[in-house]
Amino acid sequence: MQIIKYPNRDVWQQILSRPIMDSSSLFDTVRKVIDDIRLNGDDAVRQYTKKFDGVELSSFEVTQSEIDEAEKIVSAQLKQAIEIAKNNIHKFHSAQMPELKKIQTTSGVFCWQKAVGIEKVGLYIPGGTAPLFSTVLMLAIPAQIAGCKEILLCSPPDKNGNIHPAVLYAAKISGVHKILKIGGTQAIAAMAYGTESVPKVYKIFGPGNQYVTAAKQLVSLKDVAIDMPAGPSEVEVLADETANPAFVAADLLSQAEHGVDSQSILITTSETLIEQVKVEIDKQLEQLPRKDLAKKALDNSKLILVETMAEAVEMTNEYAPEHLIISTESYTDIANSIVNAGSVFLGNYTPESAGDYASGTNHTLPTNGYAKAYSGVNLDSFMRKITFQEITKEGLTNLSNAIILMAENEELQAHSNAVKVRIGD
Amino acid sequence: MQIIKYPNRDVWQQILSRPIMDSSSLFDTVRKVIDDIRLNGDDAVRQYTKKFDGVELSSFEVTQSEIDEAEKIVSAQLKQAIEIAKNNIHKFHSAQMPELKKIQTTSGVFCWQKAVGIEKVGLYIPGGTAPLFSTVLMLAIPAQIAGCKEILLCSPPDKNGNIHPAVLYAAKISGVHKILKIGGTQAIAAMAYGTESVPKVYKIFGPGNQYVTAAKQLVSLKDVAIDMPAGPSEVEVLADETANPAFVAADLLSQAEHGVDSQSILITTSETLIEQVKVEIDKQLEQLPRKDLAKKALDNSKLILVETMAEAVEMTNEYAPEHLIISTESYTDIANSIVNAGSVFLGNYTPESAGDYASGTNHTLPTNGYAKAYSGVNLDSFMRKITFQEITKEGLTNLSNAIILMAENEELQAHSNAVKVRIGD
Repeated sequence: MQIIKYPNRDVWQQILSRPIMDSSSLFDTVRKVIDDIRLNGDDAVRQYTKKFDGVELSSFEVTQSEIDEAEKIVSAQLKQAIEIAKNNIHKFHSAQMPELKKIQTTSGVFCWQKAVGIEKVGLYIPGGTAPLFSTVLMLAIPAQIAGCKEILLCSPPDKNGNIHPAVLYAAKISGVHKILKIGGTQAIAAMAYGTESVPKVYKIFGPGNQYVTAAKQLVSLKDVAIDMPAGPSEVEVLADETANPAFVAADLLSQAEHGVDSQSILITTSETLIEQVKVEIDKQLEQLPRKDLAKKALDNSKLILVETMAEAVEMTNEYAPEHLIISTESYTDIANSIVNAGSVFLGNYTPESAGDYASGTNHTLPTNGYAKAYSGVNLDSFMRKITFQEITKEGLTNLSNAIILMAENEELQAHSNAVKVRIGD
Repeated sequence: MQIIKYPNRDVWQQILSRPIMDSSSLFDTVRKVIDDIRLNGDDAVRQYTKKFDGVELSSFEVTQSEIDEAEKIVSAQLKQAIEIAKNNIHKFHSAQMPELKKIQTTSGVFCWQKAVGIEKVGLYIPGGTAPLFSTVLMLAIPAQIAGCKEILLCSPPDKNGNIHPAVLYAAKISGVHKILKIGGTQAIAAMAYGTESVPKVYKIFGPGNQYVTAAKQLVSLKDVAIDMPAGPSEVEVLADETANPAFVAADLLSQAEHGVDSQSILITTSETLIEQVKVEIDKQLEQLPRKDLAKKALDNSKLILVETMAEAVEMTNEYAPEHLIISTESYTDIANSIVNAGSVFLGNYTPESAGDYASGTNHTLPTNGYAKAYSGVNLDSFMRKITFQEITKEGLTNLSNAIILMAENEELQAHSNAVKVRIGD
């Protein structure tokens, strides 16, 4: 961990830079796989699954009996925990259903929006060291609330051709319609274009490694929408002298254990806190099963001391963290001045892990400073707003001069005619 | 125009296919310009402006005196028309400000969203044959309502180094902060990375030719967000025997005059209507100044006869038109079953041109079937929703078992520790 004291404004950008991540170098490799799957469908998917996942599958779809079996394997305790998370996620995302108004903009001119679920969505859940069943909940529950008609889930099979039972169980209780044992680029390509086994979807969600990210970016160029560009996870703790060093250390470490490219940042006005947090990190780190990985991630991490809370807030908005924990005395005031962040955690008893799992908020969030332009995944991500308008003859007459003049000044005579022919001009 | 009668379901996809559009073939060309501008800033922009727009500029920024001058040139009538449009666009987009609720998902666990304007946005307004001042209103007004702090506008200069006065006037009254005489790829690159004259923005909006589209796509891969992928404009009229053939013809033609790659589709249950519309198109076409262009666009266009209104609706949702005009007896019922469209116009007195200019709805809409996954530009496009949560010690205790169990089952011990350290477990 680097300790940086009172940095000048002109080095902020450098201090706050993320570990470099550029998936475009993988585009050529990934494009070949995509093209192959587009052309050869299931056969190509089967070959890549053999090559990358080390297993030969005759069928990709998880059967009902596999799901039933998974349900038996998952412990009652974990089921109960998942149920609590599910209920909270459902409550928070249901409350996001927009209330859209019909507006009369001019007498006789009525305009409104209708929010409609994206009919077909694809969720990608990575495999790897740990089963990310929490991400299943975060993506499938809002999809179901949005009214998506086909919710597809792809996740790589293990060497035995199975998906982790907790992932299957989470998918079952969140309304996923079809689960496929397909991972990596092949999953993204199959969902983007469809194969014999995989229906084409309109939008693809979910995290993944650099190959998955590159594949999502490539297919998003013209064939399918994606949730957002993804990068390594990151947390910032913004704290003053009232923060509890043990809590801050635990939060920084919970980010660091995600992967070697994770980033944990502390921005504080308290030099004492930095010293105490450093001690606490060393202490807590030793007890972590993933300590080697977390140690490497801590190399990307910074403890930054600034003069004032105003400066700390400004630096935070410049960094635009995916997760922001505010542990200060007047955290409500500070929260009001945050404009760039994915998800914000307020006070001493709101750890990031609450939002990662069970408080109800979504954990699929913009990394890499994308919070400046993107929201995290929320109910909107699974819907579109279609505009409607209905104009009476009187309403059209009221607007006719404006439309005709504007159209003719844009040299679009037929646009003007479409009004004239109606009002008998 | 092709007339297609009672097509089978299995040829729908082919019938409804768009004129091919693939900007990725331009990526290599466009990437060179982008890289040059990223490296050499204003100097590179100046050279490309000379090359592509045929004018040497010492300064790119439009001065206050140029704006004042433009205001004098625009006629009082056109100003009044623009004012009407502005007011309606303002009313409709202001009503879209989300009302976000604070939810207590579990006792002591409070979650909410805050909508915040994207701080820096860039609007691109193409040059070309006609001044698109209406697009200035459509992009800048919602940006202003959203609370964007820096609204930048780029548009190519003409041979004399000027931007059309109506574009400048529209920018002035819509709250644009800075107008730059930069067009094409160079505008997109300058806004994505910033130059000496052009501040970097976080999201780029606006239409453009294939080079602009390719440039937007390339910069969106990792450096800046964009509104949506753009393609040629299109309209579908969904009509029964109650539709007025002259109105339908006028609507199809108002789309056709946009460009040779525009597409106009009629889907109807009435064979008589098709015959009448054909006659009307021939009649109205002759009077259009852009008739040669419109004739070419009509080659992409189809008049499709189907058996039932249910089939017409299904085909419409499959096509997912940018603009959809519903001219049927029971248009409200039909509107309720539309799930894929950008903007929908109901009844006989609601031409697309009303929404293009002055009713208040946005005219920046998803083309090329993207309506299946994307909304048109609306207030949301200029905002992000940041999630907040505040948990009391009691609230965290209520969630603690669920978080700890889920984290440990995902093998993330430090996530679990962040809870344990707080509740003294």
